[in-house]
Amino acid sequence: MRSFCGERKIIEDLAEGRKTLWELLASYHWSLRDFIRTVNRLYEEGVIGSDGKYIYLRRPYARKGTFGSARCPRCLGRAVLPTGYGRLKRKFERLLTGRPKPVIRFFQGYMRPGDVLARIALMHSYDDVEDRSIILVGDDDLVSLALALTQLPRRITVLDVDERLGEFIERVSKQEGLEVEFIVHDVRDPLPAELRKKFDVFVTDPLETVSGLKAFLARAACALKPYGSAGYFGLTTLEASFGKWLWLQRFLAQMNLAITDAIREHSSYPTKDYGIGFPYEEEILKRLKFKYDLPPNVDWYKSTFFRVVAVGRVKPPVCSKRIRLRVHDSDDVTWPGGERTVF
Amino acid sequence: MRSFCGERKIIEDLAEGRKTLWELLASYHWSLRDFIRTVNRLYEEGVIGSDGKYIYLRRPYARKGTFGSARCPRCLGRAVLPTGYGRLKRKFERLLTGRPKPVIRFFQGYMRPGDVLARIALMHSYDDVEDRSIILVGDDDLVSLALALTQLPRRITVLDVDERLGEFIERVSKQEGLEVEFIVHDVRDPLPAELRKKFDVFVTDPLETVSGLKAFLARAACALKPYGSAGYFGLTTLEASFGKWLWLQRFLAQMNLAITDAIREHSSYPTKDYGIGFPYEEEILKRLKFKYDLPPNVDWYKSTFFRVVAVGRVKPPVCSKRIRLRVHDSDDVTWPGGERTVF
Repeated sequence: MRSFCGERKIIEDLAEGRKTLWELLASYHWSLRDFIRTVNRLYEEGVIGSDGKYIYLRRPYARKGTFGSARCPRCLGRAVLPTGYGRLKRKFERLLTGRPKPVIRFFQGYMRPGDVLARIALMHSYDDVEDRSIILVGDDDLVSLALALTQLPRRITVLDVDERLGEFIERVSKQEGLEVEFIVHDVRDPLPAELRKKFDVFVTDPLETVSGLKAFLARAACALKPYGSAGYFGLTTLEASFGKWLWLQRFLAQMNLAITDAIREHSSYPTKDYGIGFPYEEEILKRLKFKYDLPPNVDWYKSTFFRVVAVGRVKPPVCSKRIRLRVHDSDDVTWPGGERTVF
Repeated sequence: MRSFCGERKIIEDLAEGRKTLWELLASYHWSLRDFIRTVNRLYEEGVIGSDGKYIYLRRPYARKGTFGSARCPRCLGRAVLPTGYGRLKRKFERLLTGRPKPVIRFFQGYMRPGDVLARIALMHSYDDVEDRSIILVGDDDLVSLALALTQLPRRITVLDVDERLGEFIERVSKQEGLEVEFIVHDVRDPLPAELRKKFDVFVTDPLETVSGLKAFLARAACALKPYGSAGYFGLTTLEASFGKWLWLQRFLAQMNLAITDAIREHSSYPTKDYGIGFPYEEEILKRLKFKYDLPPNVDWYKSTFFRVVAVGRVKPPVCSKRIRLRVHDSDDVTWPGGERTVF
């Protein structure tokens, strides 16, 4: 069995100098639960210490050799970048100022605007934007508005349970002359019949419990045309164990969706800008074996961005049935072992 | 059904100015067969023309909006880059000068040295290098020597059918005081019993027929320890259809290997530097509907780099059986529809 996940990575990071908990977490590649376990263990063994703000090494650490690795400083690991987007970005950011604040009840939390544009750039590089019909299953990131600003898609449809989001999108669209269709829809419910097999592309950011992944991705898959249509979604290692990733890989394969890209740390979430706090941070701090009280100084919550492509017919397993959503499962760091069903 | 693959991408590329066939191909995201089909169709419809060296648009093309996308100019889309590797890279390049030339019989063709280091950087970022036991199933890229130069791995074992490669690796290792173990092994044969379940990490570049992928990846998986061990391999869209990608996704899931990264265009192959020609280029030119004779001016053959992680026990389906290798199958551009078995 493998040694504690990422122990050496944490030590190597600290060998460069003291770091905040959030800086360590931002470059950590395993789950939140593993992170807490590893940090606690290193603390109890006297390898690391903390003054409540910084974490530091308590013993000298000699690296073997000089070889190391780092995210690309230019694209931060996002590989494909937008071009010709200066005005668009300024406009998008201006439109976002009145956006609804994330609501914990809907598991919301939006990503950075620059990351939204990087998502659209990846989509563009695969010819999945211009003249395409695009459905967003959940859209508190407001990818729909950024897409509309490019003036490239043929149709943009947003499904979201949050009516505040609908009002915002409709108001902004009207004001700016953008065409975005909004439909209030609860992902637990089947996709409206008139939306099935109608779209070239889906974009979604699922709730990361098994039932959440199933609901969001099955609904999104129901919307796809067969043969070469594509889907994009985010997934974290923080909340979802690799067991869940493996389950998802099988689930996608059953639907005839082949993974073509999985880009680590593609999207980051500015939890400190939400102005509502963030439910995890407190839960993380509670589980530490040492006192720590610095609020996040970097974006530590990041997700891998996946692209899938339809090979032949798309075969969603549950097009017409209601799906029960569990908002926690045994992989969750915050309520480990606990499960809770919504409604 | 989707329109011709990448047609708009080719037109958009050409809207920036004339390009060589190889430049168009280098940024193309579908198969070689689709590329040839699309280029031929655009030529026959009078959309593009060629003077034998360059391809150009024959009609003006007005882009909608200004939004576009491009690979990150710094990392070329490789996301994670090596650090502290200046001396190592110079040494690696010096060692490579005497490397054996690729042999078509063994489907060889090595990647750029910088791409080898970028592979190792990704591995390093996941803590899959230092103190790890690493097996290379096939290694004409000589990743083994670059790994040895980092002085980080605990054990490096190379399996390859090409004895010339063994002689080269053994000679260089002796000369430089590096520890690399070489075993002559034909991937059609079962993995030697003493190597099974002994490694933390595998690296391989499979032959991209179904039997090739099966043989290389099953042998590599046989070598892995359970729980958290990892594998790395390259795969192209040029030679393998997304149907094959989907098959592979299922095959990996059956073995309990979860895909954690799929990085497009991570590795590029300097076919023009091999000094042997390259079997595809002639086959591509033969299939064009117009005269074209410029040799490659850019590296057009690129692959996606995958990382997989073992979830629980690794379950390779064919540990003890011989696997027949087919070197062509219906996805191949060069011999479409044809199949040929080796021996």
